[in-house]
Amino acid sequence: MPTVRLDIEYDGAGFRGWARQPGQRTVQGELETALATVLREPVELTVAGRTDTGVHALGQVASFEVGQEPPADLTRRLNGLCPDDVAVTAAAVVADGFDARRDAKARSYRYRLLARSAPNPFEQGKALWWPHRVDREALDACAAALPGTHDFTAFTPTQTDHVRFERDVLAASWDSDGDVLGFRITADAFMRNMVRVLVGTQLEVASGRRGVESFVALLEGAPRTAAGDTAPPHGLYLESVSY
Amino acid sequence: MPTVRLDIEYDGAGFRGWARQPGQRTVQGELETALATVLREPVELTVAGRTDTGVHALGQVASFEVGQEPPADLTRRLNGLCPDDVAVTAAAVVADGFDARRDAKARSYRYRLLARSAPNPFEQGKALWWPHRVDREALDACAAALPGTHDFTAFTPTQTDHVRFERDVLAASWDSDGDVLGFRITADAFMRNMVRVLVGTQLEVASGRRGVESFVALLEGAPRTAAGDTAPPHGLYLESVSY
Repeated sequence: MPTVRLDIEYDGAGFRGWARQPGQRTVQGELETALATVLREPVELTVAGRTDTGVHALGQVASFEVGQEPPADLTRRLNGLCPDDVAVTAAAVVADGFDARRDAKARSYRYRLLARSAPNPFEQGKALWWPHRVDREALDACAAALPGTHDFTAFTPTQTDHVRFERDVLAASWDSDGDVLGFRITADAFMRNMVRVLVGTQLEVASGRRGVESFVALLEGAPRTAAGDTAPPHGLYLESVSY
Repeated sequence: MPTVRLDIEYDGAGFRGWARQPGQRTVQGELETALATVLREPVELTVAGRTDTGVHALGQVASFEVGQEPPADLTRRLNGLCPDDVAVTAAAVVADGFDARRDAKARSYRYRLLARSAPNPFEQGKALWWPHRVDREALDACAAALPGTHDFTAFTPTQTDHVRFERDVLAASWDSDGDVLGFRITADAFMRNMVRVLVGTQLEVASGRRGVESFVALLEGAPRTAAGDTAPPHGLYLESVSY
């Protein structure tokens, strides 16, 4: 059966996350509805990163199998059927058996903060407004401690169904562009809320409420209660997936 | 009387333009309401660029006179009262008699286009989606013809109340950043719809429906009917004002 890869962007504000749920507006639900119309058969999407309610994506990847070759203008037709807050940037037949989740080698997430005293109408819902102190050196020291294999128990809700709490972080860094401060992290995989708790805890360091060494100590299996708040979803973007 | 200068940003989507109108949501109306609350007296704003319905601003400037010295935390208090789609980035007492409109030496506008085949959820309402041909060399040639003094009769509705149709263009250029194509123009002053008709007409050139020479010929007082369509407001930004 032909296997198709979709590259997808979405503004998470209007979605109850990626995963299809009865009676909820979800990205998977909208895309599967559009796909069923174009392909004239129901398909089921497998996704690289199951984003939560309100989280955005710039480089989400999903895959599906279909009974017959899809039309050549699949991308254009899907965009014609999708609502304005989701776009398919590419739709292509790939090697049989490609699985967007299982074959992903790494995911990169980015968290955006508007670091200035006044709000910005254009960053509304696109970045966390942070009119507080930012100790950039301390943030850089936190990010420098992340690469490698760590136990991220402190950075995910205790009630999750994860069985293994170690993850391999390939890269992590803070950058800035004008008033926008960004945190980018690449890992083999992420647990639920992991990036948002990493950001929320680092913001405690940035504002001087927690020391860098306290953040670093959390990386070896500390309990969730030892870490900081979960940063809100509207600053978070699934940026890219590598295969 | 103390004179105050405000630097303002707004997302134009939710406003019936800058100018206060009874029963309409306008930027001037929202700001004057917030100012009256903070200052405990009504003030009237003078503005550098009266933007139309749906047009955005990154560097709008307005001024007003007030009976007594405003509070030191005026910026913060205004942002606390303003809706999310307008922000005051600075509020400061300036030299007596400063007038945001009369004293402005030049205004810069920017028009943003999303030049790719797929839409982009994050550029929704922030750039004109242009999934058509773009002859960038032809656009550059159009922009190169703009600096200097020209008669822009062709680029404003005939029913306006302008009395003089000549404007001095100080700079004009196209640039690109990833998928976003931008047109920036700086002039002493602009007529109603002028940037939007300049963009609409240049897009005819970009897509091959009009020659560069036809665009250039419009700059010496051709009638409005000789120029192209008025590009939609959501791609347009008042970027900065110089004094």
